[in-house]
Amino acid sequence: MQSVLDSCTPQNARQLIRDGAAVPTAGACAGYVQANLVMLPEEYAYEFLLFCVRNPKPCPLLEVTDKGAFESTLAPGSDLRTDLPKYRVYRHGELVAQPHSLEQFWSEDLVSFLIGCSYTFESALLQAGVPVRHIEQCTVVPMYTTSIECTPAGRFRGRVVASMRPIPYQLVAKAVQVTSRYPGVHGAPVHIGEPLHIGVDVTKPEFGGQPVVIHSNEVPVFWACGVTPQAVATSQRLPFMITHAPGHMFITDVRNEHLAAL
Amino acid sequence: MQSVLDSCTPQNARQLIRDGAAVPTAGACAGYVQANLVMLPEEYAYEFLLFCVRNPKPCPLLEVTDKGAFESTLAPGSDLRTDLPKYRVYRHGELVAQPHSLEQFWSEDLVSFLIGCSYTFESALLQAGVPVRHIEQCTVVPMYTTSIECTPAGRFRGRVVASMRPIPYQLVAKAVQVTSRYPGVHGAPVHIGEPLHIGVDVTKPEFGGQPVVIHSNEVPVFWACGVTPQAVATSQRLPFMITHAPGHMFITDVRNEHLAAL
Repeated sequence: MQSVLDSCTPQNARQLIRDGAAVPTAGACAGYVQANLVMLPEEYAYEFLLFCVRNPKPCPLLEVTDKGAFESTLAPGSDLRTDLPKYRVYRHGELVAQPHSLEQFWSEDLVSFLIGCSYTFESALLQAGVPVRHIEQCTVVPMYTTSIECTPAGRFRGRVVASMRPIPYQLVAKAVQVTSRYPGVHGAPVHIGEPLHIGVDVTKPEFGGQPVVIHSNEVPVFWACGVTPQAVATSQRLPFMITHAPGHMFITDVRNEHLAAL
Repeated sequence: MQSVLDSCTPQNARQLIRDGAAVPTAGACAGYVQANLVMLPEEYAYEFLLFCVRNPKPCPLLEVTDKGAFESTLAPGSDLRTDLPKYRVYRHGELVAQPHSLEQFWSEDLVSFLIGCSYTFESALLQAGVPVRHIEQCTVVPMYTTSIECTPAGRFRGRVVASMRPIPYQLVAKAVQVTSRYPGVHGAPVHIGEPLHIGVDVTKPEFGGQPVVIHSNEVPVFWACGVTPQAVATSQRLPFMITHAPGHMFITDVRNEHLAAL
């Protein structure tokens, strides 16, 4: 899965994307933070912000723009309307377009939320010698709606979506330690061990396609997933919402290590 | 400085306060998190929430209530209108009352913000063998407006207020490590070493009264302070605002260790 973006600087990658490179960002600009995007009309911004503050594990906020602003402080010179390779536009909860630029959809009353993504902690896991199965299998991480309720805020309510990575027994503690250092990108696991305890059948991912292999010496470990705020926002059937398309994230100028606590 | 609250459970302490004990909460209910309070009309809640999210070191949010709600989830059965020993009520930036209960001031459109306080990390410092000078001197921690600008949000803008604790050279790294574990209560220092570098004359605290002694083997270390959001909100001369009175905090049922990252 080589990509034109792999060996780019973040600045060059955003320029290539702005010029039309509509490719996934997995593996792009190694070492730099990528972010999920949610854009909402101002009318919904307070409740959504409160929802994120109350649910920091699935919704770790990296930045909230002013209304109508489109440059991210995490990437000077960026333009959130053009610098993601693919967007999803929803009206009343229905996906109506997947454009490569927001030229036709942007309006001045939109607030942009940039939310931490698991790419950062997966990079830290790999560096710590913890294997990441879906990367080995070249597939998308399996994701599941759990039975864990988010703390509601106004109209926003729903269950935590979690991603699962099988971890060898002797590396489970290490996986907790490494990801705990990154509270800005989902942090420590939400569950370790028994998928049914959080209402999950691991053979049936709801998002992300195929299940991954779990070996007999491995434990399924679940982390809160950035799909949660999108799923929650979509389920409210808001008149208008824009998100990144899955796997097509915003690449920032911030290094992964910059997000590490301690 | 013995107090009737010292050996109480948080539940009993809040009941005593509700029944009229108008005493400072320093030293009360050892081991439990105390919180700063800011109450604002809904009209200002979004911008203030955004200000806190953009400035997590001076404004670490522990909880944001729904509009009109007065029970904190950090203390089931609590009533934020009666369970702090003393409040400050501001109109257009002027202090107009310091009541022991909000009976006459409460309204349904208020949103309450509970913000982390340094008592938690001071307890952790002491347990790690790091001395805390103002506690030794039985005085209030000296606080200073620094030259560090907060990231503005809407009408809310201003400079970081920092508290200073002199730390022996050989314990500076330990003090950073210990407080880094508590991002929910101001986290790691904002400055170590040269007060003038952040525009501070240590002999002239602006808040908190007397300067503390700095010995020749000690370094002045500054942490972002929860006075910041109050100072910023006051300077906007909002039509209406309520805060806790200095030193008269909200005592929660949450143990300090519960806030520790890693």
